[in-house]
Amino acid sequence: MLTLHSIIGAMNWNDKFAQRTRHMKRSAIRELLKLAARPDMISFAGGLPAPELFPIEAVKQAIKTILRRNPQEAFQYSATEGIADLRTLIASRFSRPGLEVRRENVVIVSGAQQGLDLLGRVLLDAGDKVAVENPTYLALLSAWRPWQVRFLPVPSDDQGLRIDALEPLFEQRPKLLYLIPNFQNPQGTTLVAARRTALTGLARKHGVVLIEDDPYEELRFCGDPLPRLFELDARRTAPDLLDSHTIYVGTFSKVLMPGLRVGWIIAPEPVIEKIVQAKQAVDLHTSTLSQWIVHELVLDGTLEQQIPRLRCAYRARRDAMLAALAEYFPSEVSWTTPEGGMFLMVRLPPVLRATDVLERALRQNVAFVPGDDFHLDGEDRNSFRLNFSNPPPELIGKGVERLGHVLKAMLRAA
Amino acid sequence: MLTLHSIIGAMNWNDKFAQRTRHMKRSAIRELLKLAARPDMISFAGGLPAPELFPIEAVKQAIKTILRRNPQEAFQYSATEGIADLRTLIASRFSRPGLEVRRENVVIVSGAQQGLDLLGRVLLDAGDKVAVENPTYLALLSAWRPWQVRFLPVPSDDQGLRIDALEPLFEQRPKLLYLIPNFQNPQGTTLVAARRTALTGLARKHGVVLIEDDPYEELRFCGDPLPRLFELDARRTAPDLLDSHTIYVGTFSKVLMPGLRVGWIIAPEPVIEKIVQAKQAVDLHTSTLSQWIVHELVLDGTLEQQIPRLRCAYRARRDAMLAALAEYFPSEVSWTTPEGGMFLMVRLPPVLRATDVLERALRQNVAFVPGDDFHLDGEDRNSFRLNFSNPPPELIGKGVERLGHVLKAMLRAA
Repeated sequence: MLTLHSIIGAMNWNDKFAQRTRHMKRSAIRELLKLAARPDMISFAGGLPAPELFPIEAVKQAIKTILRRNPQEAFQYSATEGIADLRTLIASRFSRPGLEVRRENVVIVSGAQQGLDLLGRVLLDAGDKVAVENPTYLALLSAWRPWQVRFLPVPSDDQGLRIDALEPLFEQRPKLLYLIPNFQNPQGTTLVAARRTALTGLARKHGVVLIEDDPYEELRFCGDPLPRLFELDARRTAPDLLDSHTIYVGTFSKVLMPGLRVGWIIAPEPVIEKIVQAKQAVDLHTSTLSQWIVHELVLDGTLEQQIPRLRCAYRARRDAMLAALAEYFPSEVSWTTPEGGMFLMVRLPPVLRATDVLERALRQNVAFVPGDDFHLDGEDRNSFRLNFSNPPPELIGKGVERLGHVLKAMLRAA
Repeated sequence: MLTLHSIIGAMNWNDKFAQRTRHMKRSAIRELLKLAARPDMISFAGGLPAPELFPIEAVKQAIKTILRRNPQEAFQYSATEGIADLRTLIASRFSRPGLEVRRENVVIVSGAQQGLDLLGRVLLDAGDKVAVENPTYLALLSAWRPWQVRFLPVPSDDQGLRIDALEPLFEQRPKLLYLIPNFQNPQGTTLVAARRTALTGLARKHGVVLIEDDPYEELRFCGDPLPRLFELDARRTAPDLLDSHTIYVGTFSKVLMPGLRVGWIIAPEPVIEKIVQAKQAVDLHTSTLSQWIVHELVLDGTLEQQIPRLRCAYRARRDAMLAALAEYFPSEVSWTTPEGGMFLMVRLPPVLRATDVLERALRQNVAFVPGDDFHLDGEDRNSFRLNFSNPPPELIGKGVERLGHVLKAMLRAA
């Protein structure tokens, strides 16, 4: 007899379904986030923005405006592709002289995570090969694994993914290459300008579609902004996106507020069409109220005020973390120096395993995410990710100091 | 060379991927909704609640409370399973003497549509058989077709799905049976009490899992409320849901406001666990603000005020529609008489095809959805669905009158 229990039981162990769910284990990050919510914990674990910087007063005004102007519309069902005004705003923000992004190139999604999920649905098929930076964004792997794709790891260094490794890899004909070019999660590294040009050229030559996941772009503290891959790619061919090989995924989560769940995808119109069809079956549309709030906050200038405010605050937090790392961490340990974003990566000497360090650190009420989960093979056990956007500045030094003590004690014992 | 264009092109015509996307055509309903948005159109096409009945004042108060009490939390990332307070509220609303629904039995989803999508992800595998009422909810078919399941149609009459047809159908061992027991979309019919008991018994005997999609439950105008299937099912066995065969999908879209996109699933804990894992990869979590707004509106009594208000208003609209149908429709045409909900179904004589009627009706600025799309085989061409919740009462009679003229003219010409 096929019971609900036996279906659920069977899901874990046998039949093809298991292949879809095998990787559906709760992500270590989300579990850690729960632990990190303990009140006395100094958490470098999550990927949360600083909530005390949310533009709450502006939100109050925005909601007031929305409720005065079109309250019924704001709470009614709305178009799957997103509200037209917000799509137009995004399109114009991404248009440049010589590059026209039109409203039809934009679909609103329920956070960038849904964007990635929908791209998997629309573009991937069982057996497809997908090239990804290694390490890469954990929840991309969870989103695309159910489609039974094979991930090909692209090695990277402090300048982003390594172009010299791409040509042999592209010989294996991956369908997509997924990357976070700016202040990558988890490493905090940025793909340098020369590599961007080389990458779009190579991808076009080999017919590999690029998925440019760019949640942290606006959070640049220093150095010049670099051209987006989709811009470089489109400029090669036409003033519009019609022949673009690059699909861009953006979000308001890091520059406004993540709880609204509003992101977007920019792509050639036929791709947008397919995504809209998939989204219709998935959740009908993204919260209408959330979309109008974001629309107001872009239109009234809040976003433009918020970006320098966040850059300044996060830069101070990064600097506090870098200073504390230099002061308290043993000389055997190294780390990346991000030019923006929310994360940096710590590299341990081979004698120390990140999960062992975590176990000890949690006892000292400090949390972080070991690098294992971000690696395709789960084999890099000697690195971990630190978030500097969420903990208040005064706790960053304290937390790093405690971590430093743990590391020194472990090194002495090793 | 594998280009983005060739990938998109290939999606339509060849390889296994096409099987996933073939059915991803934009639903006729959504396309019609666009047309129905023309200002002079009297639309019976959509499934929209009446926006003038949205509790906007209460929403203003709710948002004020949220922004005063916990603004940062309301806009931050939140738990994938939903905010604990809302899950607890829902669990207590569904608990009865002898039936304990616990917070752990509830997951918040981004509208019932996402609930259906996630259930497909978690429970279905290629080749599975799924029994559905015929006709049934269109977007359920779009959500589950990508999993390459085989739908088995269950015939139904004015008392809901026919139990006598179930036993032979269950011999084919479907994994799930999906149904809308109350005021079904598109027919407006309700599964009578005796059939509910029989259905849960049969499903348990044959090991078929029931998916009880119940968006309209609270919109009952007349007659007594009937026991939910998941209650009947759980009461057979234990005071909790652990051995339940029935998964319940609910939503605040019809009783509060759909634009918030907040629904829920009630199921045994192991199922909820799997859904949460799937949801993590799909959209991380449902809009935090939306969840808090719903939470406030339940807690402050708005929901309890809203339900009788909607019942009264929708009953008046249904009555206006039934009266106009009796007055203006030719005698060859019949229709269902729903005890609640938002829809009724019109049945045409064989000489009239619903799509032909639609074409003529649109020229008279009246819209509806032909029955074809709701039927598994698309073969019932002689029925259409009318929505009575959205059009203002004064337009209902006018629209039905115009439709009546169209039908009479077509019958004369036939």
